[in-house]
Amino acid sequence: MKEKILLSGATGLIGSAVFNKVEAEYDVTTIGRNNRNDILADLSKPDSFANLDIERVDTLIHCAGVVDEDFKENPEQAFSMAVLGANSLVEAAARAGAKKFVYISSAHVYGPMIGHVDESTPVNPISDYAIAHFATEQVFRRKANTTASVLAVRPCAVFGHLESPGAFRRWGLIPFSFPRDAAMHQKITIRSTGEQRRNFVGTEDIASVILSWLKKPKLGFAAVNPTGSTSCSVYQFAQLCAASVKERYGLDCEIERVTPDGRTVGDDFDYVSLFSSARGQQSLSSFASEFMTSLREAL
Amino acid sequence: MKEKILLSGATGLIGSAVFNKVEAEYDVTTIGRNNRNDILADLSKPDSFANLDIERVDTLIHCAGVVDEDFKENPEQAFSMAVLGANSLVEAAARAGAKKFVYISSAHVYGPMIGHVDESTPVNPISDYAIAHFATEQVFRRKANTTASVLAVRPCAVFGHLESPGAFRRWGLIPFSFPRDAAMHQKITIRSTGEQRRNFVGTEDIASVILSWLKKPKLGFAAVNPTGSTSCSVYQFAQLCAASVKERYGLDCEIERVTPDGRTVGDDFDYVSLFSSARGQQSLSSFASEFMTSLREAL
Repeated sequence: MKEKILLSGATGLIGSAVFNKVEAEYDVTTIGRNNRNDILADLSKPDSFANLDIERVDTLIHCAGVVDEDFKENPEQAFSMAVLGANSLVEAAARAGAKKFVYISSAHVYGPMIGHVDESTPVNPISDYAIAHFATEQVFRRKANTTASVLAVRPCAVFGHLESPGAFRRWGLIPFSFPRDAAMHQKITIRSTGEQRRNFVGTEDIASVILSWLKKPKLGFAAVNPTGSTSCSVYQFAQLCAASVKERYGLDCEIERVTPDGRTVGDDFDYVSLFSSARGQQSLSSFASEFMTSLREAL
Repeated sequence: MKEKILLSGATGLIGSAVFNKVEAEYDVTTIGRNNRNDILADLSKPDSFANLDIERVDTLIHCAGVVDEDFKENPEQAFSMAVLGANSLVEAAARAGAKKFVYISSAHVYGPMIGHVDESTPVNPISDYAIAHFATEQVFRRKANTTASVLAVRPCAVFGHLESPGAFRRWGLIPFSFPRDAAMHQKITIRSTGEQRRNFVGTEDIASVILSWLKKPKLGFAAVNPTGSTSCSVYQFAQLCAASVKERYGLDCEIERVTPDGRTVGDDFDYVSLFSSARGQQSLSSFASEFMTSLREAL
């Protein structure tokens, strides 16, 4: 009999990659507020989880954490979802027997993106977004003990296939906005020097990290930094997008840096994992190129 | 000219001791929701801080963090106060020029009270209460930089003079409930083995730690564990209260332990500070004895 996974955020950026990665080997039940889910539930209404009739599950994977946009729209509700909503989901899964819990958190829980950061770096969440993600990690960590395992997954800059780019609302993320701006407007605007470094990790690599953990979960709590094969500055990523649109479509893409001069805090950011199994291999340049093509073909 | 302090929670357990300790040397303005404060403001209404006309301040001391009772009454509002409310207060103080920020947090941010804990121990807030206190610390920490100083104060079991015991609502705290139960009912009930250890710290010692930091603040962020001279088990503290009521009033006090047997998680808890200046000297037994007297005299 297949192990059962309860998955939130299955239609989202990371959740859809997780779904695709695990569905062959696991029996997956999706949970969320849109009606493409097997179980309808809304993190902004924690009480609604109290009477959910979830059949036995082995694992909860929560890919529907708060996003930046939640804080712009309703910060009070965002914190409530991050703590009380997540707690309702965790408790519902625990009542159904779950002993493995995975939460997609964020590299922002380490604080300002400067210097060397690996899993031994102390947490220091600064923004509302980061504080909320850390709070959710801790709600999950409550379940870590001598018979149950909790994993917090902390990606930096995430890229990956979008099932429906038209419904995507997270264009604040540069792995998506830069290729879009290069392909559609032939102009990328960087509101800084662009010298701050990022690690770019693909959603399939993130899903692989989760899949291998599921097969060998460590009892108690662990955090992991899933890392991609490309670490570069924001400006270098813009250059990559510009080169790609030139090569593929012969278009010249302008890169504007609003403040091109001066030393940038974070030009030394080095985001790595202590675990070789957390180091991915998806190609950032292939993603950018294919994403630009999909956008232009949708015209 | 005296330096100016903006103080919240000035009528509370710790805040009143801070007020008494600093008022001779500093110009103190109190802020809070009851009308004994100089400035009226309510953390549960973050927007109300936007237009506060606070004159120049040098230091914010926030002694009105969330308490356990807030989570029982309205957990959503408690998180909102801990993050958004605290942020409004911090920003109002910063606008008025504050460069020193002190927040009374809790030992619970370190997580389960087991083993050795000092300021180098990684944080691991588990309960809603602990997560909220850590979130507030981080809201304060946002202000830490090369020209501003932030101190998070993390006491364990706090005792001290109550200005109005009749208005006190935090009887879940054993430094108050045990002396009360010994003096008034001659029976102390412990809902466990009572073998878990606590460090008991007086409010005047906490205020002294803050006062010395104010005179020599370290730029950036620091956390400190103000520690009292008595560390003992909960059961030993109950015995101290029983002995005191016997000695002073000749009354026999029963101590009931609901689960007297078995190994207790936390019987090895050793809560200390790396800083000698954070080690206090107030007497727990004198406090318990005097507190019992004040309660009996109020009869």
